[in-house]
Amino acid sequence: MSGLRTDLYEIRMATSYLRRDMTAPATFSLFARKLPRDRGFLVAAGLADCLEFLQELYFDTDELAYLADVVGLDDDDLKALGELRFTGEVRAVPEGRVVFAGEPLLEVTAPIAQAQLVETALLNFVTFQTSVATKAARCRMAAPRADLIDFAARRTHGLEAARAVARASAIAGFAGTSYVAAAREFGLAASGTMAHSYVEAFPDERAAFTAFADDFPGIAVFLVDTYETLRGVRTAIEVAAGCSEELVGIRLDSGDLAELAIQSRHLLDESGFPAARIMASGGLDEHQLVDLSAAPIDVFGIGTRMGVSADAPSLDSAYKLVEYDQRPVMKLSPGKLTAPGAKQVHRGDPGEPDVLGLRDDVVPPEREPLLEVVMRDGAILGDLEPVAVARQRFERDLRWLPDEARRLTDPTPVGVTWSPKLQRLTDDLRHSLAARLGWEDISKP
Amino acid sequence: MSGLRTDLYEIRMATSYLRRDMTAPATFSLFARKLPRDRGFLVAAGLADCLEFLQELYFDTDELAYLADVVGLDDDDLKALGELRFTGEVRAVPEGRVVFAGEPLLEVTAPIAQAQLVETALLNFVTFQTSVATKAARCRMAAPRADLIDFAARRTHGLEAARAVARASAIAGFAGTSYVAAAREFGLAASGTMAHSYVEAFPDERAAFTAFADDFPGIAVFLVDTYETLRGVRTAIEVAAGCSEELVGIRLDSGDLAELAIQSRHLLDESGFPAARIMASGGLDEHQLVDLSAAPIDVFGIGTRMGVSADAPSLDSAYKLVEYDQRPVMKLSPGKLTAPGAKQVHRGDPGEPDVLGLRDDVVPPEREPLLEVVMRDGAILGDLEPVAVARQRFERDLRWLPDEARRLTDPTPVGVTWSPKLQRLTDDLRHSLAARLGWEDISKP
Repeated sequence: MSGLRTDLYEIRMATSYLRRDMTAPATFSLFARKLPRDRGFLVAAGLADCLEFLQELYFDTDELAYLADVVGLDDDDLKALGELRFTGEVRAVPEGRVVFAGEPLLEVTAPIAQAQLVETALLNFVTFQTSVATKAARCRMAAPRADLIDFAARRTHGLEAARAVARASAIAGFAGTSYVAAAREFGLAASGTMAHSYVEAFPDERAAFTAFADDFPGIAVFLVDTYETLRGVRTAIEVAAGCSEELVGIRLDSGDLAELAIQSRHLLDESGFPAARIMASGGLDEHQLVDLSAAPIDVFGIGTRMGVSADAPSLDSAYKLVEYDQRPVMKLSPGKLTAPGAKQVHRGDPGEPDVLGLRDDVVPPEREPLLEVVMRDGAILGDLEPVAVARQRFERDLRWLPDEARRLTDPTPVGVTWSPKLQRLTDDLRHSLAARLGWEDISKP
Repeated sequence: MSGLRTDLYEIRMATSYLRRDMTAPATFSLFARKLPRDRGFLVAAGLADCLEFLQELYFDTDELAYLADVVGLDDDDLKALGELRFTGEVRAVPEGRVVFAGEPLLEVTAPIAQAQLVETALLNFVTFQTSVATKAARCRMAAPRADLIDFAARRTHGLEAARAVARASAIAGFAGTSYVAAAREFGLAASGTMAHSYVEAFPDERAAFTAFADDFPGIAVFLVDTYETLRGVRTAIEVAAGCSEELVGIRLDSGDLAELAIQSRHLLDESGFPAARIMASGGLDEHQLVDLSAAPIDVFGIGTRMGVSADAPSLDSAYKLVEYDQRPVMKLSPGKLTAPGAKQVHRGDPGEPDVLGLRDDVVPPEREPLLEVVMRDGAILGDLEPVAVARQRFERDLRWLPDEARRLTDPTPVGVTWSPKLQRLTDDLRHSLAARLGWEDISKP
């Protein structure tokens, strides 16, 4: 990946470090400072793109020429940047796991110029994909018995985002995606029916349904609300009966979905199509899925609100230097105090708070460490895992989550306590910084 | 661009059309059904990516093999898709122009399979980039005298989104971007200072500032809030004075920005650095810019909330078939009725409502048509324009906008009236559809 895929200040800082031979290892910790409103947990996602980015990081000749011209770097700088590759270590919470505020999703340890340069991309991938996986998980919890299909591609923030949304929602238990490029890349089920325009392009609805049934026998799902929904259902039934086909399903995309689903179910059942599935779509999110939970709807197409994580389109995430040259560091900016040192999260049984400790804290035998080494010397360890593996982690962690953290509104996240060693290091460092600044009151900022 | 960058249903419908030799031209109209809350207008953006996508659309051999395997298309289908290119016409509102609900941002006229296949990508690019350009325009209006810099790359929805955000915010009057790849691609000013980690990597703040001033003489902007803001300002002043450099600027990133800016300004002025600029950043949006409008802040870094259009991360956009084979079409779905026929928007003097007419309506001499032909026979007309051209359009349209449409909360958009011909066509078509459906009450849905 092009090294220019970063913020300018990363390049300035990296250049400055390289000029001064500041090549000691730095550890940066990537975490959410707090959970968005109505979020009782986050679902980790975005790691795969981070690792790919790190493994392929480089500056090509044209890019270096641009930097020389526009940003004002000299030949030595350009030589150093041209030779730069990511050679560090990454420890991360695997995708699909549930995490909470303050817990590192990812830690990078590398010569400081490298670790700094990649901040923008790593923050971007993790923040975005974790936001969307979390939103998708909420939809999954709201409709545990239905199949959910990602319909978001038309309104995500670009098509690269559509790709990431298809993958993140699959991690969070979605059954398929409408976005073909992502279905192919990640081996997901591709799903698609017809649009209103298809019905309108034919002389009438019956002609459209007949053509579609001819073209896609055994898989045709009819969109029934172009003109009048229940009439559309009857037409679908007649067309299926007429070509002695099974009626696979119908899709409702407007109106009172619950009421129309009940009436459609009745029509389908009494016409001898009890296996025909009812799909609903149209501006749905987790709250509407709860409202529709009693309706006889088998499949939901979930689009825009999931794909942009509409009520929380971002996270208050941070990528903070916590150690440089074996020296723990922290900043004291008001409201943005960070805990020093490389860390580990120790997870216990359901109901137990997580423990945030230092990397070299001993993990008690009854607890599981969340961060794993996933890259060493700049190389990804093992193969990139299939989405199904991350999805299994998510399903397991979802069962682990207490009810109060799963609530869709006003949830109570699982607590995160600090290990004694982390608490002591933080206190000590804060005191020594405050002493150096001459503060009388340690809590000044 | 890969033809798989679409929703599966587009491929199903396109295949069905190709099988039936339904190759007559269709016109689809892309528009926002309504404006998001607190939006008095939209700033058109995303057209450049649409045109590039259309001009490069294809299916390669591997993609076709995937479709054959997974989606179940036969050899004739694959041959037809393999030969498919976009050969149609596009009329669009140029980027940077201000538009309102119901006005087409773009209309595609092409053989229906082609026009249908590209729905997902066109909706995606226009919805996302128009959302962000509009959000950026609101920031621009909230701080008309300051320079605004796009700082969003770390939290946009992917790095392709960061590219689009840099461009869209530049159209809406931003002075630069932190995202280097986009600065290079679009010829924007790249902007960047230092992070807290830089300060922390040195033994103390003074050492960090001294190193940065050495490395970037004449352009160093010092981040002053890592430990204690006003002390940081004093250190920046001493370092600049010590190396007899001009002090270019300082950046505030936390705390009470207005109060800190006043005190910083005072310190800078009394130390002989009246030209030093004060930059502020940290979770800002248009509302905080209004709150800070009296503070002596020269430059704002605007990040996440602009880059994800936080309060309106999407638009209720639609891509609707309005004409097929010279026959106007519309759907009657509850709440989603669409106006038939290819259209034109006629814009008048400030204070005049826009007129939405049919494409072949005569545009009165005192009015300007908004949609222009930008692609013909699948080829982009002329060169892709530089961002500065779109920005000039935006600046002009911003002056045209009445105050009540510019309000940041509870605005009143400019009205859109329908031409008599459009009204008549809609009424007639609705009547004939209702008659065919046997409705007694024309307003049934």
